[in-house]
Amino acid sequence: MKIGRFSSARAVAGLIVLLVALPLAARADEGMWTFDNFPSKAVAQKYGFEPSPAWLKHVQSSSLRIAQGCSASFVSPQGLVMTNHHCVVECVEQLSTPQQNLVQSGYIARKPEDERPCPAFELDQLTAIQDVTAAVKAATAGKTGDASNLALRAEQAKLQQSCGSSSDKSVRCDVVSLYHGGVYALYHYKRYNDVRLVFAPEYDIGQFGGDPDNFNFPRWDFDIGLLRAYENGKPVSSPDYLHWSKNGSSAGELVFVPGNPGGTRRELTVAQLEYLRDHSYPNELPELAQYRGQLEQFERRGPEQGREAHETLFFVENQYKADQGREQALLDPRFFATKVAAEKRLRAAVAAKPALQREAGTAWDDIAKLQGLRAQLGPRYNAIQGLEFLSSLFGDAQALVRAGEERTKPNAQRLPEYTDQALVNVQQQIEAPIPVYKDLETLNLEFALAQMRRDLGTDDPLVRKVLGGESPQQLAERLVSQTKLDDPAVRKALYDGGAAAIAASTDPMIRFAASLDPDFRSIRKSYEAQIDAPTRAAAERIARARFAVYGTSVDPDATFTARLSYGAVKGFTDAQGRFVQPYTTIGGLFDRSSQAPPYVLPASWIAAKAALDMATPMNLASTNDIIGGNSGSPLIDRDANVVGLIFDGNIFSLGGDFGYDPTANRAVSVDSRALLEGLGKVYHLDRIVQEIEAAR
Amino acid sequence: MKIGRFSSARAVAGLIVLLVALPLAARADEGMWTFDNFPSKAVAQKYGFEPSPAWLKHVQSSSLRIAQGCSASFVSPQGLVMTNHHCVVECVEQLSTPQQNLVQSGYIARKPEDERPCPAFELDQLTAIQDVTAAVKAATAGKTGDASNLALRAEQAKLQQSCGSSSDKSVRCDVVSLYHGGVYALYHYKRYNDVRLVFAPEYDIGQFGGDPDNFNFPRWDFDIGLLRAYENGKPVSSPDYLHWSKNGSSAGELVFVPGNPGGTRRELTVAQLEYLRDHSYPNELPELAQYRGQLEQFERRGPEQGREAHETLFFVENQYKADQGREQALLDPRFFATKVAAEKRLRAAVAAKPALQREAGTAWDDIAKLQGLRAQLGPRYNAIQGLEFLSSLFGDAQALVRAGEERTKPNAQRLPEYTDQALVNVQQQIEAPIPVYKDLETLNLEFALAQMRRDLGTDDPLVRKVLGGESPQQLAERLVSQTKLDDPAVRKALYDGGAAAIAASTDPMIRFAASLDPDFRSIRKSYEAQIDAPTRAAAERIARARFAVYGTSVDPDATFTARLSYGAVKGFTDAQGRFVQPYTTIGGLFDRSSQAPPYVLPASWIAAKAALDMATPMNLASTNDIIGGNSGSPLIDRDANVVGLIFDGNIFSLGGDFGYDPTANRAVSVDSRALLEGLGKVYHLDRIVQEIEAAR
Repeated sequence: MKIGRFSSARAVAGLIVLLVALPLAARADEGMWTFDNFPSKAVAQKYGFEPSPAWLKHVQSSSLRIAQGCSASFVSPQGLVMTNHHCVVECVEQLSTPQQNLVQSGYIARKPEDERPCPAFELDQLTAIQDVTAAVKAATAGKTGDASNLALRAEQAKLQQSCGSSSDKSVRCDVVSLYHGGVYALYHYKRYNDVRLVFAPEYDIGQFGGDPDNFNFPRWDFDIGLLRAYENGKPVSSPDYLHWSKNGSSAGELVFVPGNPGGTRRELTVAQLEYLRDHSYPNELPELAQYRGQLEQFERRGPEQGREAHETLFFVENQYKADQGREQALLDPRFFATKVAAEKRLRAAVAAKPALQREAGTAWDDIAKLQGLRAQLGPRYNAIQGLEFLSSLFGDAQALVRAGEERTKPNAQRLPEYTDQALVNVQQQIEAPIPVYKDLETLNLEFALAQMRRDLGTDDPLVRKVLGGESPQQLAERLVSQTKLDDPAVRKALYDGGAAAIAASTDPMIRFAASLDPDFRSIRKSYEAQIDAPTRAAAERIARARFAVYGTSVDPDATFTARLSYGAVKGFTDAQGRFVQPYTTIGGLFDRSSQAPPYVLPASWIAAKAALDMATPMNLASTNDIIGGNSGSPLIDRDANVVGLIFDGNIFSLGGDFGYDPTANRAVSVDSRALLEGLGKVYHLDRIVQEIEAAR
Repeated sequence: MKIGRFSSARAVAGLIVLLVALPLAARADEGMWTFDNFPSKAVAQKYGFEPSPAWLKHVQSSSLRIAQGCSASFVSPQGLVMTNHHCVVECVEQLSTPQQNLVQSGYIARKPEDERPCPAFELDQLTAIQDVTAAVKAATAGKTGDASNLALRAEQAKLQQSCGSSSDKSVRCDVVSLYHGGVYALYHYKRYNDVRLVFAPEYDIGQFGGDPDNFNFPRWDFDIGLLRAYENGKPVSSPDYLHWSKNGSSAGELVFVPGNPGGTRRELTVAQLEYLRDHSYPNELPELAQYRGQLEQFERRGPEQGREAHETLFFVENQYKADQGREQALLDPRFFATKVAAEKRLRAAVAAKPALQREAGTAWDDIAKLQGLRAQLGPRYNAIQGLEFLSSLFGDAQALVRAGEERTKPNAQRLPEYTDQALVNVQQQIEAPIPVYKDLETLNLEFALAQMRRDLGTDDPLVRKVLGGESPQQLAERLVSQTKLDDPAVRKALYDGGAAAIAASTDPMIRFAASLDPDFRSIRKSYEAQIDAPTRAAAERIARARFAVYGTSVDPDATFTARLSYGAVKGFTDAQGRFVQPYTTIGGLFDRSSQAPPYVLPASWIAAKAALDMATPMNLASTNDIIGGNSGSPLIDRDANVVGLIFDGNIFSLGGDFGYDPTANRAVSVDSRALLEGLGKVYHLDRIVQEIEAAR
C-alpha cells in the first residue's frame, strides 16, 4: 500500500477536494490527527494513557516522510531509517542491472561502505507547524477563477520562500490546506536528499503473497526496507529516533501510528462522490486494468523485461486493487446512504441558522452543478496528465521545457511545481542516474497516446496535433528510439542551459513536448479556473459552516502530511462471518509457502528455518485509521517504542477513503519481533541488529 | 459488431432475462420484429408501403443466420452468401498459416475450385415458425427450482427432436422463448454445415478505422465477406435469394434489415438493470480490459504472435467498446429514469386490476430480492464459465468429458448443449481442423485461472482444487504444453470413443477437466436452480401481466433469431451538436487514409484509385433498430433488393440494448454501390460480380 507515482498522478487527475471531517460520523479510534490537534484527552479516557506534549514532539521528530509517497522513521541515532520493502523497491530496481537483479536477490549492506545512494529519494522531517490561514485568505479574498488560482499560488510561493534561504536545500516549507481551506498551515521540514539503501529482502518475502494477498489479513509478509540519511557524505546524527520495544505488543494494547496518510475523501459532497462512482472509476479502472495486462505480457518477453517492468506492475496492481475496493464502497447502497444522510444533517443544521444559510446554503448545489462541466473537461485534462505521468521520457521533456520557461519568471508567478523550492525536486529527478528502459518506455508512451485518441477521438484537433500523421505506435517508437533524454548528462545539460538550451535542442522528445506545451498549459489553466477554483470556493464555505456547526476538534482529511492515529491491536470478523485473530506467526508463513509464486519462500528463509522461533508473531492487525501513504509508518506503543511496521490494511480498509468503519477496518503491520528475528537469524545483519538493539 | 464467442459467453454469464417490450416506449422505427408478427400496417401508414405476406416470406427465406453469431443472406441462386468481413475473419484466420497470412492479404477465390471450406461454420435458414407455448407451459406447470429447469429441458429436447429425424443433420429445430416466456416457438431451420470462403478483403480495408472508428459514423469501411453454401460437394441451389438494387438507396428512403439481433435487455426490471450497472459491468469491463492489454502485448512478441492473436483482439476490442457504451447508458441518470418510470407505470396498471395484482404484483420484488443471492453466487458461476470460454483447449476437454457422459443418458435428460441435435455442433467444433496456438492458449488459460483466484481468493476450496500446488502460470504452461488436444484426430478419437475413451485417457487436460466436472456441474446446477428458475418464473408473470395491460402487438426482446426491422436512410446530430449526413463517399475514404494504422489503405485500393468513382456512396446510416448479431444483415429496399450491408451502429446505438432512441440511434451499412465498385474495380472478381449482376 503505497502512494507511488501512480497514486499521486491519479489523485491530481481526480482533483480531490478535501473537506473537514464530520464529527457525527467520528467513532472510536477514527482519525488521522495533526500533531498540533491530537485528542490526547479522548485517548486517555478510552485507553488510560494521555500522550504529553513532549511525547508528541518526540514522535513527530522521529517520524519521516519519503517524498515519493511513503512514511518512515528514525530507529537509531545514526540516521538509520525504517520503512517498507515496497517503499524502497524503486531504489533497489534502479540500482539493479541486467546482470544483477537486486530486486530478486535482495540487497544487504554488510559494511557501512556498502550503503548505496538511492538516485532520487528525499526524506522530510517535520520541524514546525505555523498557521498561515489569515495570510492566504487575505490574498485570495474576492477573487474567482484564474485570478483566485494565481493569487493562491503567489501567496504559497511567498510563504514557502519565507522559511529559509533559497540556497539552503535542506529546508523545505509547504503550504498545507487543511479542512479544505478551513485552515492553511505552513509545514517546515528538514529535508534529506542523500538517502542510501541499507537493506531490502528478496522480493519473494518482501511481497510474500503478492497481489492475491494484498489488502488481506491474515497475512505473512516481511515488508521491511532500511535506509540511512546522509549529509556531507556521512550518516546524519538523528537524536530523535524511536526505540525498539523489548516485548512487542499484545492483543488489546493501545498502539499509535505516526505517518503521512496520502489522502482521504471523507468530506466530499455527495455530488462529488457520485462523480467518482459514475465517472472516474468506471473510466479509470478499465484503463488501469488494460495497462496492467500490457505490463503482464511485457514481462513475459524475457527475464530482462520481467526485471524492467516488475516494480511498475506491482504499483499498478496495488493501485488497481485499492481503487476497485473504493469503487465497491461507493457502489454499496448502504454505505452511500450514510454519506447522503450525513450531508442532509449538516445542510439541515446550516439551514436552521439564517446567517450560515446565507453564507453556505447553496455551496452543495454549486458543487453539484460543476460536475457536468467536470465530465466535459475531464477527459482532455486527464489525457494530458496521462501522457506526462505514464511516459517518464515525455515527463522529463515537459519538465525541462517548463523549467526553462518558468525560471525566467519571478518565483511567485511560476507554476507551483517550478518555484525555487520545488525545483530542488525537479532537478534531483532530472539529474538522477535512473535507468530508462526504452522498450518499456515505448509501451508506456504508446499506451498514453492510444488512450488519448480513444478518449478524445481520432478527429479531435488536439489528437491530430499530437499524433501528426502517425499512429500511437509509430510516434512512440520514433520518439523513444531517437531521444537522448535517457542520458542523465543530456538532461542535466538541458536543465542547466535553461530556455535557450531548450530552444536550441533538436531532440525529438523535447521538440514534441515544446510544440504541445502551449496547448497543454491552456487545457490545464482552463480546467483549474473552471473547476478547481469554484470547487475550492464552495468547499471553503462548507468548511466554515461545518466549523460553525460542529466545532474544530475534528481531524482534517488526509493530505500526505504528518498525522498520528491511535487504536488497539484487534482482530475482526471477515466476510464469511469468521473471527480473524490479530496475530499470525512465522510458523504460519512456512505453512503457507509453496513452490508456486507468489507463495515461494526464498532460500535464505528455508535455510534459517531451524533457527527461527515458529511461534514469533509475524504480522498483526490493529484498529488504527490509516491509508495509502502510511506505508512504512512505525507502529508504536505508549512508550513510543516500535512494536511493528505498518505495511497494509485489510480489505475493509479500502472504503476508509470515504469513511472509517471501526468494526472491520484494520491496519496491518509486520510485528517488531519478526523483524528482529528475520534481520538477525535469516539475514545475519548483525551490525544493524546491534544498532537497533543498542537503541532499545 | 458481432456476437462472437465472447459475446455469447458473456450473455450466458449474465443470465439475461428477456421480457416483452413496452408499448409506451415504442416509437417510430423501433422494433426487432418476428416475421410472423410484423407491423406491416404501421409501415404502410408511415412509409406508404405495406409488405405483403409473400414479400415477408421471400425475405425470410433469403435471409440466413451464421450460427457462430452473425447474419447473412443469399445473393444468388447458386448459394452465394453475403455477410461481413468481420463475420468471416475467423475462417480466414483458420485457413492462414505462419507462411501465408490471409487475414492481412485477403482471400479471393478466383475460380470456383478455390472456394475453401471454413472449418466450423454453420448457416441456418429459417423455414417455419410453430407456436409451442401450450406444450412448454404444461410441462413446467407447478414446478420450481431444479425441477422446473429439468422439465423445461426435457420438453425442449422433445420438441426439437420432433421436427426431423435425428440422422438428418440438415434439419435444426430450436425452442425459442419470446416475450420471456409469454410465447414459446419452435423455429425450424434448414442447416448448412459445408460453408466455403469465396472472398475476404485485406484486413486493413475490411476494418478500416479499426477500434477508434468502431461504433462511429461517419465511416468508410469495406466490411464485406462472401461465402457459399455447399451440399454434397456442390454449391446449393438457393431459389430464394435477394436481388441487387440497380440504383441503391437515397436519403429518406424506406429500408429494411432482416437478420438475427443477438439480444436486447429492454424489458429487464430496474433491479436487474441495477445489477448490470453496479455489479456486472464494474467487474467485467476491467477484466476485459486487462485481457485486451495482455493480447496487445502478446501481439508485439513477433509477427506470428501478431497473426495468432489478431482476431481475438479484434473481438475483445469490439466487445469492450460495446459494453462500455452500455454501461454509460445505464450510468446516465436521465436514461435510467425512463426505465424507472416505465416500470412504475406498468406496476401501477397491474395494481389497478386485483386479479392481475394477485398474479403478478410481487414479481418485480421477487426479482429484486434475487439480486443479492446473484451477487453471492455470480463470481463462482462466472469463474467456471470464464475457464471454459477463454481456453479453447479446456473448453474442448470439458466438451469431450461431458459429451462422453451425456450420451449415456436419454436425450431428454441431457444438458441442453448435448442433445442429439446440439451434438451436431459439438462434433463439428471438436473435429474441425482449427489451428491451436499453444502460446496464445497458455495466455488464455493462465488469465482465466488468475481471474478465478482473484475473484474467489487463494483460500477458496475450489481455487485450491483447481490450482493444486501450482500457480496459474505453472498450471497453464504444464497443461497446455502436455495436452494433445490440439490435434483434431486426437479429439475425434476421444469423441468417438465416448465415456470409456475419456476414462482411459491420460491426457492432462482431459484429466484436469474430468476431475473438476462434478464441481463445475454442481455450481452450474445450483446457480440455475436458485437464480435462473425463480427469475424465469417471476419474469413470466410479468410478461403475462404486460400482455394483459398492453396487448401483444409489440416486438419481443432479441434472442439471436430471425427478425425484421424497418426504418429510413437518415443522418443524425452528433454529441457536438453537428448534423451528420447519412452518406459518405469513396473519395472520403481516400481522404481519410494515411500511412498510419488503422487508416492504411491496402495496395489494391491505391492501385485502383484512378478507376474508382470517388462520388460513389461508401457507407450509410439508417434508423433501423438493430444490435450485435445483425452484423452481415442485408439492407434492402421495398422491392427487397440489396441496397447495403449492415456492419455496425453509431455510438448512440449502444444504449439500444436497453432502449431505442429514434433521434440518434443509427444502423451503419456499406452501400451496395461501393460493394460492386470494390468487387469489380479493386478486386476484379468478375465471376462473382457477374453472378450478382445476373441476379439483379
